[in-house]
Amino acid sequence: MVDARRIYDRCEALARHSEQPDGLTRVFLSSEQRAVDELVLGWMREAGMEARLDAIGNCVGRYEATEPGRACLMLGSHLDTVRDAGKYDGMLGVVTAIECVAELHSTGTRLPFAIEVVGFADEEGVRFGATLLGSRAVAGSFDRAVLDAVDASGVSMRDAMTAFGLDPAHIGDAAHRRPHILAYAELHIEQGPVLESLGLPVGVVTAINGGNRVSIEITGTAGHAGTVPMHLRRDALAAASECVLVIERLTGSAADVVATVGRLVVSPGATNVIPGNVRFTLDVRAPTDDARHAARTAMEAECRAIAQRRGVDIAIVPLWDARTSACDTELQQQFAAAVEAERMRVHRLPSGAGHDGMALIDIAPIGMLFVRCKGGISHNPAEAVDVTDVDAGARVLLRFIRHFQPPDAR
Amino acid sequence: MVDARRIYDRCEALARHSEQPDGLTRVFLSSEQRAVDELVLGWMREAGMEARLDAIGNCVGRYEATEPGRACLMLGSHLDTVRDAGKYDGMLGVVTAIECVAELHSTGTRLPFAIEVVGFADEEGVRFGATLLGSRAVAGSFDRAVLDAVDASGVSMRDAMTAFGLDPAHIGDAAHRRPHILAYAELHIEQGPVLESLGLPVGVVTAINGGNRVSIEITGTAGHAGTVPMHLRRDALAAASECVLVIERLTGSAADVVATVGRLVVSPGATNVIPGNVRFTLDVRAPTDDARHAARTAMEAECRAIAQRRGVDIAIVPLWDARTSACDTELQQQFAAAVEAERMRVHRLPSGAGHDGMALIDIAPIGMLFVRCKGGISHNPAEAVDVTDVDAGARVLLRFIRHFQPPDAR
Repeated sequence: MVDARRIYDRCEALARHSEQPDGLTRVFLSSEQRAVDELVLGWMREAGMEARLDAIGNCVGRYEATEPGRACLMLGSHLDTVRDAGKYDGMLGVVTAIECVAELHSTGTRLPFAIEVVGFADEEGVRFGATLLGSRAVAGSFDRAVLDAVDASGVSMRDAMTAFGLDPAHIGDAAHRRPHILAYAELHIEQGPVLESLGLPVGVVTAINGGNRVSIEITGTAGHAGTVPMHLRRDALAAASECVLVIERLTGSAADVVATVGRLVVSPGATNVIPGNVRFTLDVRAPTDDARHAARTAMEAECRAIAQRRGVDIAIVPLWDARTSACDTELQQQFAAAVEAERMRVHRLPSGAGHDGMALIDIAPIGMLFVRCKGGISHNPAEAVDVTDVDAGARVLLRFIRHFQPPDAR
Repeated sequence: MVDARRIYDRCEALARHSEQPDGLTRVFLSSEQRAVDELVLGWMREAGMEARLDAIGNCVGRYEATEPGRACLMLGSHLDTVRDAGKYDGMLGVVTAIECVAELHSTGTRLPFAIEVVGFADEEGVRFGATLLGSRAVAGSFDRAVLDAVDASGVSMRDAMTAFGLDPAHIGDAAHRRPHILAYAELHIEQGPVLESLGLPVGVVTAINGGNRVSIEITGTAGHAGTVPMHLRRDALAAASECVLVIERLTGSAADVVATVGRLVVSPGATNVIPGNVRFTLDVRAPTDDARHAARTAMEAECRAIAQRRGVDIAIVPLWDARTSACDTELQQQFAAAVEAERMRVHRLPSGAGHDGMALIDIAPIGMLFVRCKGGISHNPAEAVDVTDVDAGARVLLRFIRHFQPPDAR
């Protein structure tokens, strides 16, 4: 029914449009974006959609319902990439959605709702440092201050839009105006190792995890590694090490809470000097804001207790706080039903990475389907997906579309 | 009997000879060394000693016994400094030894043994990167390969000696030739916080601790801080943190074992990336080689066990191994008796830092007396000693000299 090989080949075709000859980088409002837009709009039209660029440069294809002008199920993902990217992050979701519509079109199938497929022009935020620009424009939450942001060459987003042939004054036109969006559903590679570890081709996403980033600084007393006995030390690294382990342990307090100390810098950092200062970061993510806040609060309290017990000073500075975007439970159920109907085991998992649904949740319930990727690797040229998994994901998405029921909650 | 104020003032006088106007830096074979040599040789002669520079530039003063040509008690410390040094590290020991001889001389006291006071020209090794050059020359263990070492300006030690008026071919002449040295005894500031924490002006040193330095590298798997669940992680920093804490805990396995992780570098070191690699150093010191080897072996075994349990790789590379230089038990006892006779409580402690005794132990039993310093701070302009503690140290050293009995063991 769906042609996984064509999906695969189209991802290859998109990957050829890169700012560097070896590897893949395609940023917002670039000539490479223009080239893939031509391809994508063409595939959309071929699949029976009315297709256009919207006011911020998203590719939008619309496949009407049995009656024109009905509310839509929106499908999509993004067409921009990180630097030195893989070929599937974003693109797989756009191309698979088009393939599903092509299948409906080829069999003359119309549904009681319209389908809109969107290839978002910017999700990664590589060029101007602000993410989700395409989906925020559709959700009506685009922050016009970003128009003044400049890229590495000093070109503002405003000027880049003009050069691309878009009018910055009309970004508001990209906001969805139709009666309403019944739901937003996205297929995406997992970008993590869970499905591979379980031997499953697809998984149903429960939430796009919210996150906190926190900076922690511990100050003890530097001293001579030979002359200061253990009981007189105020070793900042020993204290920080206890913090790292308590943070790891406290992730067990609720399901799917993850926490990472990714950066840790020791001062003065000499072999024969007791560390006087350690600065480290804490990144906490969870599928519910309650679980995340509880974990973060417990972690910070334990770190403070460790510092107090060891007689070292601690300073905790919040850097970043993003709420969870929960996937709609009815949409999760509909995806799960489609997975089961395709004779695969249903596994539900949160998304630790960010996705366009974080913007679209403001105007519609969201749902996501993950496709297994090799080794959990993403944002890397080694990103890989099996064509059999692409087939599995496309079949589930098509079935989901065919059986889609608008969630009651909206 | 001894004039602590004069000792104090002479340390000030020596500190005026520095390569920089603010602060104190005086390296081997410098014009500043020549200036302090003049002072020290003058003070030695004033104290009734025959004084000379030896073949490597040490200031050597000899105070004969009741009969000339007898074996000697050697006293001393070093006259060179680290960069931006304090005024007491080394110099206090030289000046106090001269003061003790001056007191014997002023009362016409001759003892059954000669006294030699040595102001070693290089202990810190700042200029040529090799330490204990003065005391190694006296011990006959100077490594002639160091003559080819160059300083930061590209001047070899060989050329620097010649420029200073010394003949590199004759370094062997600095080796002690007299019948034998009965013992080597050194007064030095503690350079650590133990005596201050106990409220004691002096302490009897049990050993110059041996040490090991080891480099440890842990390799796990870097990954996305959001997408990799805790149970699928191989976090190199979590493993290293466990190692830091087990190292700290295992110092309790024997008295006075200290261990320090002073350097720890996390890769890739980004807030949102699980650490894939951590390199850290381990510095272990102990007053006995057995205790040190036992501690190091246990630490390495526990680190390997942690790595195995966490499924990360570990590589442990030894960098440096220095044996303990134990202070002679009879000399410790004689110092302890002198401390008691001066009505102070006897506290024995190891030296975590290196000293000239590490070289002289090859030719004589060694003993050391520590004097309390402020806040345990050394190798820093903030290094400070109370004049009352200088007085206490000088009185103990003088009493030790007067009652000195050559250890039976030699």
